[in-house]
Amino acid sequence: MNKYIAEFIGTMILVFFGTGTAVVTGGFTGGLGLGYLGVVAIALAFGLTIVAGAYAIGHVSGCHVNPAVSIGVWLSGRMSVKDFAGYVVAQVIGAFAGTGLLSVVVNGSETLSGFGADGYGTLSAVGLSMGGAFVVETFLTFVFVLVILGVTASEKTSALAGLVIGATLTMVHLIGIPLTGTSVNPARALAPAVFTGGEALAQVWLFIVAPLVGGAIAAVFHRAWFSVKDN
Amino acid sequence: MNKYIAEFIGTMILVFFGTGTAVVTGGFTGGLGLGYLGVVAIALAFGLTIVAGAYAIGHVSGCHVNPAVSIGVWLSGRMSVKDFAGYVVAQVIGAFAGTGLLSVVVNGSETLSGFGADGYGTLSAVGLSMGGAFVVETFLTFVFVLVILGVTASEKTSALAGLVIGATLTMVHLIGIPLTGTSVNPARALAPAVFTGGEALAQVWLFIVAPLVGGAIAAVFHRAWFSVKDN
Amino acid sequence: MNKYIAEFIGTMILVFFGTGTAVVTGGFTGGLGLGYLGVVAIALAFGLTIVAGAYAIGHVSGCHVNPAVSIGVWLSGRMSVKDFAGYVVAQVIGAFAGTGLLSVVVNGSETLSGFGADGYGTLSAVGLSMGGAFVVETFLTFVFVLVILGVTASEKTSALAGLVIGATLTMVHLIGIPLTGTSVNPARALAPAVFTGGEALAQVWLFIVAPLVGGAIAAVFHRAWFSVKDN
Amino acid sequence: MNKYIAEFIGTMILVFFGTGTAVVTGGFTGGLGLGYLGVVAIALAFGLTIVAGAYAIGHVSGCHVNPAVSIGVWLSGRMSVKDFAGYVVAQVIGAFAGTGLLSVVVNGSETLSGFGADGYGTLSAVGLSMGGAFVVETFLTFVFVLVILGVTASEKTSALAGLVIGATLTMVHLIGIPLTGTSVNPARALAPAVFTGGEALAQVWLFIVAPLVGGAIAAVFHRAWFSVKDN
Repeated sequence: MNKYIAEFIGTMILVFFGTGTAVVTGGFTGGLGLGYLGVVAIALAFGLTIVAGAYAIGHVSGCHVNPAVSIGVWLSGRMSVKDFAGYVVAQVIGAFAGTGLLSVVVNGSETLSGFGADGYGTLSAVGLSMGGAFVVETFLTFVFVLVILGVTASEKTSALAGLVIGATLTMVHLIGIPLTGTSVNPARALAPAVFTGGEALAQVWLFIVAPLVGGAIAAVFHRAWFSVKDN
Repeated sequence: MNKYIAEFIGTMILVFFGTGTAVVTGGFTGGLGLGYLGVVAIALAFGLTIVAGAYAIGHVSGCHVNPAVSIGVWLSGRMSVKDFAGYVVAQVIGAFAGTGLLSVVVNGSETLSGFGADGYGTLSAVGLSMGGAFVVETFLTFVFVLVILGVTASEKTSALAGLVIGATLTMVHLIGIPLTGTSVNPARALAPAVFTGGEALAQVWLFIVAPLVGGAIAAVFHRAWFSVKDN
Repeated sequence: MNKYIAEFIGTMILVFFGTGTAVVTGGFTGGLGLGYLGVVAIALAFGLTIVAGAYAIGHVSGCHVNPAVSIGVWLSGRMSVKDFAGYVVAQVIGAFAGTGLLSVVVNGSETLSGFGADGYGTLSAVGLSMGGAFVVETFLTFVFVLVILGVTASEKTSALAGLVIGATLTMVHLIGIPLTGTSVNPARALAPAVFTGGEALAQVWLFIVAPLVGGAIAAVFHRAWFSVKDN
Repeated sequence: MNKYIAEFIGTMILVFFGTGTAVVTGGFTGGLGLGYLGVVAIALAFGLTIVAGAYAIGHVSGCHVNPAVSIGVWLSGRMSVKDFAGYVVAQVIGAFAGTGLLSVVVNGSETLSGFGADGYGTLSAVGLSMGGAFVVETFLTFVFVLVILGVTASEKTSALAGLVIGATLTMVHLIGIPLTGTSVNPARALAPAVFTGGEALAQVWLFIVAPLVGGAIAAVFHRAWFSVKDN
């Protein structure tokens, strides 16, 4: 049970700090109107939630805090299907708790708006098409999960895993925010879309499906090529 | 005695570099008027004081440099009540030394003003209410102390603790500065408020109480759920 | 074979995320027109691709993802000439795959343009001469490869190598982007120049030759002075 | 002899990349006129030179690359007076080589000017007085050297020393650049002042003396209080 509570707390932290920083800085399209400057801050914030979470709860649950990570770990044969289901439920509830807490905090602050929802087309800062968004979310998640499976596979580097994975998530956001807002995480995408509603909610399917596809491909790829060394 | 001197020096470093960077950059509402850009620099500066302090004095005192951290460590059963009291006294004196040194340095520089005091309502960059500020300070400190208790619990990751805790404090500031200025540390809140006076001083109680509440909850939470693993 | 696939994937990640961040932010001369702000983001993105790659594929191939690194490793006697050739071929193909994917993604987004090509003279943000560019690219690559050979030589620090090398590549870009756009990597230079064409393609020889010279000098230097300790 | 060559190379890297980033970004008072944004980049660049240098040459010489560090190490009883003298000579020559190379590179680029010299009064971005500058440079160097002596004293954390010391140097620059430009390193202060001449050269004594005082105090302080643990 503790590991599900850990995933709940970890995903709540990810969503509150990550999308919360997006809300207070405004990112590309709203709030304080800082443009790309806000994106650098948001990219750092998302990455640092993984650093924080990995060392706060990693010893309990592994700190997936992301169904796309859990699908990759499951398909790599490192967790049971029962745990996969339990993790995803805990992550989704945690994401709604994070967005809910954010909603409570900023209530009444008129300079704040939006909940960090993702999007394509008119909701993309650079007008990325639906197809482009699907490719981007799939590839970004593929890279993210490939790094996770690689760094956690070796005892030598596993102590550094939280730092490395957090750094990778920052990298993913630096390019991803101007393109789609960056999901790479179905739980992180769903909760803000539900709170925002409208077009953001209508597009949320892509930000759930593409990351799961990317995570699954990473697992297959990792097993096929990178789980053993050759000469 | 050495550990109290270490806490004094460490808190002086935290306050001088953290709030000092806020003073020279201006943060959201004053100084050089850099807006959120200054906040990114301040968030980095606060986080890096923990990195510096952890490896300079961590082997002597653990580098709490924050009464909210010490209350969490104490309630986790890792330090005596006598040491808790001694640490808090040393931290508060260190914070006043840091703000005092900052005051000496910038004296006569008319472009510099303020001492990095926290606030809500009209003193919040986004007009956050008192209730919202209490929730924010409690939750941010809860997360911060939860990470500290987690990363220092395992021998495997304890060498990295300074980097991880510093990264977490940067994350906390990225979202917290636009909201409240970010206390999460009663000693860091008190000294600048006393030097600034007026409304900042009248509000300082919140930035002392909420972090202590958050740190205490983190200790209870950590003991209940995260100090052991299950399957 | 796995190690060549690893170099292909790693270089694709380097080029997609590094030059992709340059494309979406605009760097100094195009896109969203963010000036040096974009450069900070690009410098971080390039550095973080090394962090991600090192821990995703480092255990398979060492994550060179750069012919100038491979020439340094080869001349240091740490890899065969056959592997050197195989690595370079895989890196060049990976760089084209990265630029190609970027081209697919941004197709139709009119606010995006260019592929992160390097340049001197009128293609340098500060108008750096051809001679100056040759010196810069040689010296930057010399420092970069010297750090790589140093940090990977000791068992004590090799677990940290990915973080250190990534940090060094960020440092290299902070100064290099305003000067030349920063190659220090013939594969990363070639693919964007071919996609961009024109003057960028006419200048690309320098961004292939100078990094190889710098990497070779680093290997000679490392062997002569730093591979052993004295007192 | 190798260790002196290492200090020469390391200091050349520090000065070229650190002050070079200052030159291309313009910092507070010149060049591209980016204000504090440039300062964030410069602070990162200086910090990252230590990360790079520590793992490239640290195993040979310890990577002091700073007479104020060497005086602290010497007064801590960890190096001989003969080596102290040799290190300082190598560092000063390395600093001139770094500034000289920078001068060659930017020759003819009219948008670039200055060599990153430090200053007080009219040469300080915030008009800091001479007395304030002396206090700042002494305290900043004291903290910097205290961290170095602390993190290198323990076998447990010594592998991380380069990352920690680099992070600390970034912290020092975030607050120091608006105040004095940040010396904390007599070799780094001297070479740019000589190349710049005029008032910068007239003020350089302070940026040599104050860091040496700060480094010496750190050594005394470390020996007195932090070299042993108590309970």
